[in-house]
Amino acid sequence: MLRNVSRLRKALIQWTIPRHDLCPSPADRVFQSVSIPPVQKAVVRLCHSEKRKDYSLPNSSWSQEMMEHFNKLTEMTKDGTWQRLSSYRNTLEHTPEGLIKQYNLKKDEGTRLFLRNIDEEGKGFEYAMFLNKQEKKLAGVFQFGPYLEGPPGFAHGGSIATVLDTTLGILAMSIAFRVMTANLSINYKSPIPLGSAVMGTSKVDRIEGRKVFVSGVLQSADRKILHAEATGLFIQLPKAPGDDGPSPL
Amino acid sequence: MLRNVSRLRKALIQWTIPRHDLCPSPADRVFQSVSIPPVQKAVVRLCHSEKRKDYSLPNSSWSQEMMEHFNKLTEMTKDGTWQRLSSYRNTLEHTPEGLIKQYNLKKDEGTRLFLRNIDEEGKGFEYAMFLNKQEKKLAGVFQFGPYLEGPPGFAHGGSIATVLDTTLGILAMSIAFRVMTANLSINYKSPIPLGSAVMGTSKVDRIEGRKVFVSGVLQSADRKILHAEATGLFIQLPKAPGDDGPSPL
Repeated sequence: MLRNVSRLRKALIQWTIPRHDLCPSPADRVFQSVSIPPVQKAVVRLCHSEKRKDYSLPNSSWSQEMMEHFNKLTEMTKDGTWQRLSSYRNTLEHTPEGLIKQYNLKKDEGTRLFLRNIDEEGKGFEYAMFLNKQEKKLAGVFQFGPYLEGPPGFAHGGSIATVLDTTLGILAMSIAFRVMTANLSINYKSPIPLGSAVMGTSKVDRIEGRKVFVSGVLQSADRKILHAEATGLFIQLPKAPGDDGPSPL
Repeated sequence: MLRNVSRLRKALIQWTIPRHDLCPSPADRVFQSVSIPPVQKAVVRLCHSEKRKDYSLPNSSWSQEMMEHFNKLTEMTKDGTWQRLSSYRNTLEHTPEGLIKQYNLKKDEGTRLFLRNIDEEGKGFEYAMFLNKQEKKLAGVFQFGPYLEGPPGFAHGGSIATVLDTTLGILAMSIAFRVMTANLSINYKSPIPLGSAVMGTSKVDRIEGRKVFVSGVLQSADRKILHAEATGLFIQLPKAPGDDGPSPL
């Protein structure tokens, strides 16, 4: 385990919880219910120079069902208890500029975040996630596109695992900052038809030292069908030398 | 559970173990060690009319390491105990023509198998799987491309889960023909660097009625690093009315 932690530590210094989108794009302004947090200089500088696209904002491929749930979740951000998590197509785009400079990280334009690797809107994963850091909860809406097929007409078990790993893992990261997945256990309950919008929620069950135990579910948008449930164990990694990010638990 | 089985049953009649590639392409002839099984009329007819591409055969993106392990696995097919499993980019392309006609299935060109949804060779998953039906074992070689990123430079936990779900699930299907995943539990041991070739193996641990218990591992090509291990529970589905496929366990 120690050898593996050492191997991951350098890579994971920048694999932290995605930040708010601090660069309101024209798309932001269309959706009046989206609250824009105060601008922070460092992130804005990165944002403007890189022209990142925030994929957590609606596009024309989103179904009416998807939009309704996005709007409901966005409503929850108005009092500040929940925040929408921006989503970019490259892992490094989620990294604060300070860390990029501190560790002299090189951008590799040839890589893509697994969940954002399809260029055509609506063909792969479409999603937006919202975090309630105080209550240690995450909620998101996910649309499974036609390129995620397993059984004909239904989402692949691996694509469901991917969404659950993300739903649980991002929450664990919001608590412990630098984590690696140790275990992910999924009970598949009911298949997910391609094209449908699914609600994903996760919560922190307990924290024991560096271990963060998280669980979550994927349900139909009307909450009547339980598609899958999962538990995850995430291990917090030690801080790297010189890392001025948040302290360990 | 019964409601869910009913919902899946129609979809899963054609979600069966992929057949051998029965249409030797020019690529086949390059690799002399690939054994071509006797031609079967129905599949050849489908094959010729659809011009399916078999993605389990090497392309220029495969690393030397990947090729070496593919050739070793292909060697194991010479005495007939192992067989290479063809892989197409659409689930329905794996379906015998008889079933397509029997159930009047419509091809939907707009869908893609989750593991074959990236057009550019080498960017997503590259893999070939081999089955030993008598010993109830599966072995495969998997190359994780740069579009499968999680932590910078490493494969996403969801992409690892996807490969394990496939490695275990295809083996369960080879035993029980029509299955749905009930549980998948993964222990992540060591991250997988993007671009590396990884060996995946799975075996059937036991069968209890309609339950098939399978386990498997992902290891580095030299077998020195255990990347992940998984157990899976797959439930055999009842035969649909008129289904003349293999009988239940």
